[in-house]
Amino acid sequence: MFSATEQVLEAEMNRLKLAVKTLQGEDKSEEIYIGSYLLARLEELGVTSMFGVPGDFNLGFLDLVEDHPTIDWVGNCNELNASYAADGYARVKHGSVGVLLTTFGVGELSAMNGMAGAFSEMVPMVHIAGVPSLRQQATKPMLHHTLGDGRYDAYTKAAEQFTYSQAILTSAISAAAEIDRVLSDCVIKGRPVYITLPTDLAYAKISSDRLKIPLPRHPSPNDPEVEAFVIDEIVKQVEEADGDVVVIADACAIRHDAIDELKDLLHKTGYPVYAAPMGKSAIDETYERYGGIYVGSISRPEIKEKVESAKLILSIGSLKSDFNSGNFTYSIPTTRTVELHSHWTKIKYADFPEIGMKQLLPKLTARLEGGKAKALQLKVPHFDAHIPQETDDVISQAWFWPTMSKFLKPKDVIVAETGTSSFGILDVPLPKDSVFLAQILWGSIGWTVGSTLGAALAAKDCNMNRTILFVGDGSLQLTVQELSTMLRKGLKPLIFVLNNSGYTIERFLHGKERKYNDIMNWKWTGLLEVLGDIDGTLSKSYTVNNKNELTELLENPKFAAAEVLQLVEVMMPKHDAPRALQVQAELSGKTNQYAL
Amino acid sequence: MFSATEQVLEAEMNRLKLAVKTLQGEDKSEEIYIGSYLLARLEELGVTSMFGVPGDFNLGFLDLVEDHPTIDWVGNCNELNASYAADGYARVKHGSVGVLLTTFGVGELSAMNGMAGAFSEMVPMVHIAGVPSLRQQATKPMLHHTLGDGRYDAYTKAAEQFTYSQAILTSAISAAAEIDRVLSDCVIKGRPVYITLPTDLAYAKISSDRLKIPLPRHPSPNDPEVEAFVIDEIVKQVEEADGDVVVIADACAIRHDAIDELKDLLHKTGYPVYAAPMGKSAIDETYERYGGIYVGSISRPEIKEKVESAKLILSIGSLKSDFNSGNFTYSIPTTRTVELHSHWTKIKYADFPEIGMKQLLPKLTARLEGGKAKALQLKVPHFDAHIPQETDDVISQAWFWPTMSKFLKPKDVIVAETGTSSFGILDVPLPKDSVFLAQILWGSIGWTVGSTLGAALAAKDCNMNRTILFVGDGSLQLTVQELSTMLRKGLKPLIFVLNNSGYTIERFLHGKERKYNDIMNWKWTGLLEVLGDIDGTLSKSYTVNNKNELTELLENPKFAAAEVLQLVEVMMPKHDAPRALQVQAELSGKTNQYAL
Repeated sequence: MFSATEQVLEAEMNRLKLAVKTLQGEDKSEEIYIGSYLLARLEELGVTSMFGVPGDFNLGFLDLVEDHPTIDWVGNCNELNASYAADGYARVKHGSVGVLLTTFGVGELSAMNGMAGAFSEMVPMVHIAGVPSLRQQATKPMLHHTLGDGRYDAYTKAAEQFTYSQAILTSAISAAAEIDRVLSDCVIKGRPVYITLPTDLAYAKISSDRLKIPLPRHPSPNDPEVEAFVIDEIVKQVEEADGDVVVIADACAIRHDAIDELKDLLHKTGYPVYAAPMGKSAIDETYERYGGIYVGSISRPEIKEKVESAKLILSIGSLKSDFNSGNFTYSIPTTRTVELHSHWTKIKYADFPEIGMKQLLPKLTARLEGGKAKALQLKVPHFDAHIPQETDDVISQAWFWPTMSKFLKPKDVIVAETGTSSFGILDVPLPKDSVFLAQILWGSIGWTVGSTLGAALAAKDCNMNRTILFVGDGSLQLTVQELSTMLRKGLKPLIFVLNNSGYTIERFLHGKERKYNDIMNWKWTGLLEVLGDIDGTLSKSYTVNNKNELTELLENPKFAAAEVLQLVEVMMPKHDAPRALQVQAELSGKTNQYAL
Repeated sequence: MFSATEQVLEAEMNRLKLAVKTLQGEDKSEEIYIGSYLLARLEELGVTSMFGVPGDFNLGFLDLVEDHPTIDWVGNCNELNASYAADGYARVKHGSVGVLLTTFGVGELSAMNGMAGAFSEMVPMVHIAGVPSLRQQATKPMLHHTLGDGRYDAYTKAAEQFTYSQAILTSAISAAAEIDRVLSDCVIKGRPVYITLPTDLAYAKISSDRLKIPLPRHPSPNDPEVEAFVIDEIVKQVEEADGDVVVIADACAIRHDAIDELKDLLHKTGYPVYAAPMGKSAIDETYERYGGIYVGSISRPEIKEKVESAKLILSIGSLKSDFNSGNFTYSIPTTRTVELHSHWTKIKYADFPEIGMKQLLPKLTARLEGGKAKALQLKVPHFDAHIPQETDDVISQAWFWPTMSKFLKPKDVIVAETGTSSFGILDVPLPKDSVFLAQILWGSIGWTVGSTLGAALAAKDCNMNRTILFVGDGSLQLTVQELSTMLRKGLKPLIFVLNNSGYTIERFLHGKERKYNDIMNWKWTGLLEVLGDIDGTLSKSYTVNNKNELTELLENPKFAAAEVLQLVEVMMPKHDAPRALQVQAELSGKTNQYAL
């Protein structure tokens, strides 16, 4: 097994060999369209679904996609939903990327919010925009989808704000290298990238030799000397803390693929572990040393006490956004914190750039496992779902989430929309090997409908169990048409639509009784028929009005087996919200200073 | 009646007086929230509807909107649809602006495509983004809706690409002036502008005195000397052409409010007049001197012949985009062309910057009216709707459009989606005083659903007749949820959904038999019930399968009276398209060079 360093060096050597060969004119390789080259690289990255909408300037490339033997074209209803789907796909299919294909101007700009969300939450997404030919870009005719003032670079300039790197393809000679550059960036940095593919370049022929060299997919190795120093320092901190260490797992443990290494550390050290909201499901929530969600002052009291009294916090991949930290109410001094990140480490106030956790963790584990017996003495609260005893039959938030928690199964993919869902589900444990999707930092309502589509497709590839979505009525309205694409692809998610008459998260932020927080009431249970299941064979829809009806449905084995796409309208009171949302909204509202 | 010059000078003088007064400390004016100031200015511009979606960072301002006595808040289902609605509103309500309110990041980026389309097609739109407080912008906490890397300026940078000017409000002192600056730009330039409104500034108090001075709404006057020179030159050209003049009305005649001046010119000179597609409805299409649509090589032969043989073309507000010019196939030498524009004039090859048509036209008319008798001798083909005699009962494109043409009535607002609709409707006359909406340059499919909502609201203000939408099945899927908002607002458009199983315009561009040009078949006639008309009192839906059924429906007086929202699913053959679309797509396809 080669070390990461050796792999990186070997790949670089091979690339140089190829460059020499090409320059010496010894290149008798097979030729390939640039469009096909791009697809080959995506296939290499494990892509099995491509999302997007056909449009002039991408149709030629789309022929290659439709004809591709292993990449399936998912024609979405609109580009924003397609970008959400690519995001959800990438979150489930670790190591792969989400791919979005749009058209010049009208298509790509429609997806801008999706790209920005993926950037913010560190999701590896590749956005391919089909653009006019090189000749047209040079002469700049007033084509449809242009701004009318000759600016052909405006969309690229916008894209630059929300992507880690861009490949603006301008010649056949450099195209393959450019494609490789951004695809590597995408997987290594875990951020979206952008490629413009002119109509003529899609079919320009280039050598396929470069495909013989795998895409670089690993970050540079940690500098061994610095890494050793850092590990020594951390070990010293642990000793000074007398082994009283608590681990907090957060977003980037998942996003930067350090889950296995983290799990190994935890099992070998026995440290208590908690998760920030964005780290939920980084750890198996049934693990006996796992105590639940730490979210600053919003945490359950017993969790808050345990975390904040620990002598040392080992923070893995933290991302302290407002909703991820109880509005920045972490009460943990920096002097008691070690932070591991994807490409830097922080010990108290000392920064160590370019020391990444994926490589560091195994070595750290080796040094710390000796302290396990001691660590096991540290108590961890039991994280479970308390179903409250309520006298009425109303489906309250407090009753709903623990009830749903018991319905979920190992290897389920669970998607929770920003709002009562993403806050409500924090307080209940998810099953072993499940995957949790939410957009806690970016928070774009409606995201989950598209991301559920992508997640469900990836779940098939990853042999996951069911895909389950919790979405509010207000949020569903933004992106509802993607239910159609789920039907079209034969997917079978369970979709719980929380009907509480409006934008509940907004109500709690501000404007509780305001009309602008109301929405039009839809016939939720009629959606699937109208959006494609006309003969009723692909789906089932239900309304549950009270605890009894929901319980009965959840206990129905056919329902639980998810053999068709199912939508459940859950009637819930208008002014009810999970405890965590109420507290968070109050904190956010104060800082918003809406009125003086 | 003051001249434009006098009005501009007087306004400037008043502003200076106010500045002096303020500096001298004599300002004992009433105070007003900045948010209310903004609303007062929008009211002054005739705004009666504001579009958008509530979100954190705009809720405080939204209270002021909801409480406003004359501006109605239209809560849209998503921000892209809201931007489309603001666009449609502005196109119908000349002299006013379309207003869109979104939230920081997630909201505003979702609307980017709508902003760009308005920029491209010169629609005056005001995009207000609610953003974090000034303090938060300074300290840059990792709030929800941020990119996680501290960049708080990314959304502004993107917006700059697609708006004429921006007001990034950073202090109470300059806020009113900044707001006025961009609102004036919006109406004078006819392009979208962007305002960021921090949560704290929305409620900061400022003097309301500035409101006493009306917003500048007129361009600077033409330099009288240059204008006189230009008019002399044009008159000379007309004389050299021996009065054989043809007028072509195009996009900017409408967009830059020169319709009345143009009409006056035509009536007093008697010149034959044609319209480019984007100028359709600039001229009353029943006017006896109007000959129909000129679109380069795609034009009807008799129109092509008349236009291209004229000795002089007087082109009003031209915008030669590909779809607006038969793929750039105008066969009119520059040496026979005079172009009038919103802020420049071109006589053959000579450019005259800053000479705008709105002020120039009346003076030109006065000089040219003497030639009327002569001009009336120039023949003009009769532009009418030929309903072809077809033997079968299938609803063909060729039969549908002239049939619909006869159904339309004076003062109808007619919206045609990019695709078979926008091309098909070109060939048939619209009634007197009707308004035509299409996005022929930008061409974003799905736009019409949102723009119909806005257009229908503006139509009420403008005492128009019915609002009628023609949209393809593929296009409707992108933005369908806005049907809900039409129901919610009690609007009653007639919506014709052309069900021909897919993205027809794409099929003709490329990939005729490709699966990617297919769509999921929806139960179109079930949409309105499910999207809000649950008890069936707000709408009616129909399917028409053949000529007889459609004819019967059109002849039904209750249907024609548009007393509820009505949706008609029109079954049409998959591979049929209007003649104009077929030719255009073939031309575009050749330039796209999809495959070598």
